[in-house]
Amino acid sequence: MTQWHTDLSAPPALGEDALRVVPLGGLGEVGRNMTVFEINGQLLVIDCGVLFPEETQPGVDLILPDINYIIDRLDDVVAVVLTHGHEDHIGAVPYLLKRRPDIPVIGSQLTLALIEAKLQEHRIKPYTMAVREGQVERLGEFEVEFVAVNHSIPDALAVFLRTRAGTVLHTGDFKMDQLPLDGRITDLRHFARLGEEGVDLFLTDSTNAEVPGFTPTEKHIGPVLADVIGRAPKRVVVASFSSHVHRVQQVLDAAAEHGRKVVFMGRSMVRNMTIAEKLGYLEVPPNTLVDQKKIDDHADAQLVIMCTGSQGEPMAALSRMANGDHKVQLTEGDTVILASSLIPGNENSVFRIINGLMRLGANVVHKSNAKVHVSGHAAAGELLYCYNIIEPEYVMPVHGEVRHLIANGKLAEETGVPTDHVLLAENGTVVDMTAGRVRITGQVECGDVYVDGSSVGTITDADLKDRLVLAEEGFISVITVVNRDTGKVVSGPDVHARGVAEDDRVFEDIKPKITAALEDAINHSGKNHTTQQLQQVVRRTIGSWVSRKLRRKPMIVPVVIEA
Amino acid sequence: MTQWHTDLSAPPALGEDALRVVPLGGLGEVGRNMTVFEINGQLLVIDCGVLFPEETQPGVDLILPDINYIIDRLDDVVAVVLTHGHEDHIGAVPYLLKRRPDIPVIGSQLTLALIEAKLQEHRIKPYTMAVREGQVERLGEFEVEFVAVNHSIPDALAVFLRTRAGTVLHTGDFKMDQLPLDGRITDLRHFARLGEEGVDLFLTDSTNAEVPGFTPTEKHIGPVLADVIGRAPKRVVVASFSSHVHRVQQVLDAAAEHGRKVVFMGRSMVRNMTIAEKLGYLEVPPNTLVDQKKIDDHADAQLVIMCTGSQGEPMAALSRMANGDHKVQLTEGDTVILASSLIPGNENSVFRIINGLMRLGANVVHKSNAKVHVSGHAAAGELLYCYNIIEPEYVMPVHGEVRHLIANGKLAEETGVPTDHVLLAENGTVVDMTAGRVRITGQVECGDVYVDGSSVGTITDADLKDRLVLAEEGFISVITVVNRDTGKVVSGPDVHARGVAEDDRVFEDIKPKITAALEDAINHSGKNHTTQQLQQVVRRTIGSWVSRKLRRKPMIVPVVIEA
Repeated sequence: MTQWHTDLSAPPALGEDALRVVPLGGLGEVGRNMTVFEINGQLLVIDCGVLFPEETQPGVDLILPDINYIIDRLDDVVAVVLTHGHEDHIGAVPYLLKRRPDIPVIGSQLTLALIEAKLQEHRIKPYTMAVREGQVERLGEFEVEFVAVNHSIPDALAVFLRTRAGTVLHTGDFKMDQLPLDGRITDLRHFARLGEEGVDLFLTDSTNAEVPGFTPTEKHIGPVLADVIGRAPKRVVVASFSSHVHRVQQVLDAAAEHGRKVVFMGRSMVRNMTIAEKLGYLEVPPNTLVDQKKIDDHADAQLVIMCTGSQGEPMAALSRMANGDHKVQLTEGDTVILASSLIPGNENSVFRIINGLMRLGANVVHKSNAKVHVSGHAAAGELLYCYNIIEPEYVMPVHGEVRHLIANGKLAEETGVPTDHVLLAENGTVVDMTAGRVRITGQVECGDVYVDGSSVGTITDADLKDRLVLAEEGFISVITVVNRDTGKVVSGPDVHARGVAEDDRVFEDIKPKITAALEDAINHSGKNHTTQQLQQVVRRTIGSWVSRKLRRKPMIVPVVIEA
Repeated sequence: MTQWHTDLSAPPALGEDALRVVPLGGLGEVGRNMTVFEINGQLLVIDCGVLFPEETQPGVDLILPDINYIIDRLDDVVAVVLTHGHEDHIGAVPYLLKRRPDIPVIGSQLTLALIEAKLQEHRIKPYTMAVREGQVERLGEFEVEFVAVNHSIPDALAVFLRTRAGTVLHTGDFKMDQLPLDGRITDLRHFARLGEEGVDLFLTDSTNAEVPGFTPTEKHIGPVLADVIGRAPKRVVVASFSSHVHRVQQVLDAAAEHGRKVVFMGRSMVRNMTIAEKLGYLEVPPNTLVDQKKIDDHADAQLVIMCTGSQGEPMAALSRMANGDHKVQLTEGDTVILASSLIPGNENSVFRIINGLMRLGANVVHKSNAKVHVSGHAAAGELLYCYNIIEPEYVMPVHGEVRHLIANGKLAEETGVPTDHVLLAENGTVVDMTAGRVRITGQVECGDVYVDGSSVGTITDADLKDRLVLAEEGFISVITVVNRDTGKVVSGPDVHARGVAEDDRVFEDIKPKITAALEDAINHSGKNHTTQQLQQVVRRTIGSWVSRKLRRKPMIVPVVIEA
């Protein structure tokens, strides 16, 4: 297996007719997918998504790809091509377009409808170009051809690039459901044609590369949903992602089959399904939809409530139902179906909700006890088909954590791709192609851009470290006023602690010691001191006391005012 | 299914010869197991464990059962009986014994050795009584009989109580491995005898009640370990729980089979294995163990390093190896086996480690890609055997989250236990038995006792809420000195922000407004104000500004000093 390239330096200047590929997100993580392609001074961007923060990044709303590498060259971007409409592929587009609003945005009809709705919230009207599978477009130096792929959202596309340096096929996210609900399969004939033409570099979805075999077909979920809904004595609540049009379609069909009405609940569910229906991706059976305001007009046993919150998001409808804090008050005999994945890291939140729902008496059906979810990504068996049909010269696994990228690389090798033609890259790794020959040539800086409230990129890793200290230990502030002339403490020390495991009274003992230490320091310095130095004296005095007495290390905020 | 009893009030006084059962921990959670049994003024405690905190409880080291219910009656406790030596069953014993050090502690030989080692760290020498399966002891009002059960630690016991009110069988944690490594099976003949005598109330392990079928035998892991170790070209690191004697035994055997030496690494691993070997629970093959200090005397290909850290604990050896921050520097060709469960909630930490190890080039074997772990708890199939052999009158599922307790209760019903004989209880639920008849009679208060540094029970839920706010939002402190006589601001406002997404300079705008608001308030009050009121003025002024300008709600700490 090819080694990870570490300690790489800045890449060399890019020669004429050479293609440079730089992933700015999505490698070593699942999220914020973004790859930059450059040739002869022109840039093409594929995807521009967001990453959701982990528990070690408290208070962070979103994490964006670091576009510093291209920030001075945004005028050279010929287009942003979006492979599909998931947040981890389109969520950062508003932040990119704020920098240059007239970058052309290219994608399928549904993808564009979803990004336009999102951009509207940011008050940006994008320049878009809708494309379809089979279509070929010339974008400056790039000839771009689009290929139909199947995923957990309709209308996903793979992207094939023809350049003077060679060809690239980027799958985006995909799987190879052979019986998809909409009949739109991942177009292996098209892949085969491109393979015959020659794919020099193949960038492919690694999410499920560790999973043996094949992802089951989405269609198998329908009968399970129909069975659960058919046997449900009272209300049925189904939670899923609000972009999963085919999952919602199957819920609609199962509800209609059993004469139930469906209520879409939650802003994103209503918005996305309105778009999907309008564009013909969702077919609502007649007399099935009921507005959420009219929910009380229907008996419990005639209702299916379709909502979000399947990942345990605390503000979503499902979480509030589990807490008994929602207008839909669940009771004994109600049924809740989590027709969704369980994204790693969300286990505690999701099981908290399942426990809450069960405690209310609900029957909870989820992927661990029924076949109510299938993945949106190709498993190892499907990836092998791809490699064999395409026979790429070079492979660069994308879209995954390290373990996924390595597993995907191994699959490529098993199909005969030479070890040194498998490129294990990370965010910021520079991959250059010259006349069909591909190699890693350097690394550009590529950090984390945190969105926090109205701020973008202001929060630093040092701030997050502060927050983690505050979370684990709390803080103690100590305020003392010193008379500038006499060098005596005239007010305080006042000690305020928050998030610390003690009553403020515990600090009475240390106050005289702080006063003494301060006055002592002022005396010894002959007033030749800075406020910082006095504050250090306070910090040391109380810090060592707290560490000894409470066995904790809270943040100490000493304030000395010389008045 | 029996409903959860909510809105229960304090229980009635306990009549003569009535038995009261009150779980103080372990119901609605996996951890801090503790149940109190009371009859005729005497108390018997089964287990006294700790719970590990979730991400919503930052800085908390441990969570203890709330013993407030018995705090005034500790002198009436006839004994603490420990079913086995896991932390979630023995970890809170030191905190209980600090209250009354001479409470007799009863358990099997290994369980007592482990609790004694733990108590030594707390400088407590307990009064112990070692018991064996089959043994019957009279403890005041309780006749206690011990039954061998198989679990993921040797020498586990179930506990049978005979009282004037009726009988109780408490399984502790168990599974029914029919081919256990030490030949000590869960004694179903003994269960059958007790069933024939009559089990009025059956308290049983719910952990795996949702898992269909049977937990595979521990023995099946041995050949997998031997195969991985046999094929490993260089070093092998195995991570597991330090109390899992049989798992370690199999690692030792597999290492010996392939002529490798084993190094125990980490304090708890060395301590526990020393105890286990001394007492005969662990059989170390001759010339196999190497002291960790002598690790450099052996070639990589001759070593197996046995360590802890399989749950992603950041300070453990495995985590530091993954970060390249340990004297054992892993490289291409090394093998790491996580021979362990993946406790829900730890996914992110564990996969972070797996990614780190793989990035270093290690081959990582874990339960998702090889059969290197089996559970320690009975699955649904085994629980059915138990119910059918014991035929209990009443069942109270213990040891599990709500979903586990409900699943276990359903299994009992399926074997014929009447619905209203299945008691779904929570921590603090009071269950009374009179002449073999059992019912829920009330609820006692039962909260969370947090250990944080040297403090026990001082941290409140309000403190944790503060910590979560600090983590999500940071804080802003504003210090202003006001001249008591003139009512004018003479120093400040000084604004210090930590964990907030802005540079301190952003606050320059608001400082004059704070000064104006303060002086205005003083003027209007005609000095008839409290410091608190002035601080409220500061809080409101900056709080609304921050919320509008930064769209965040950090903690505001206003300090006004009137000097």
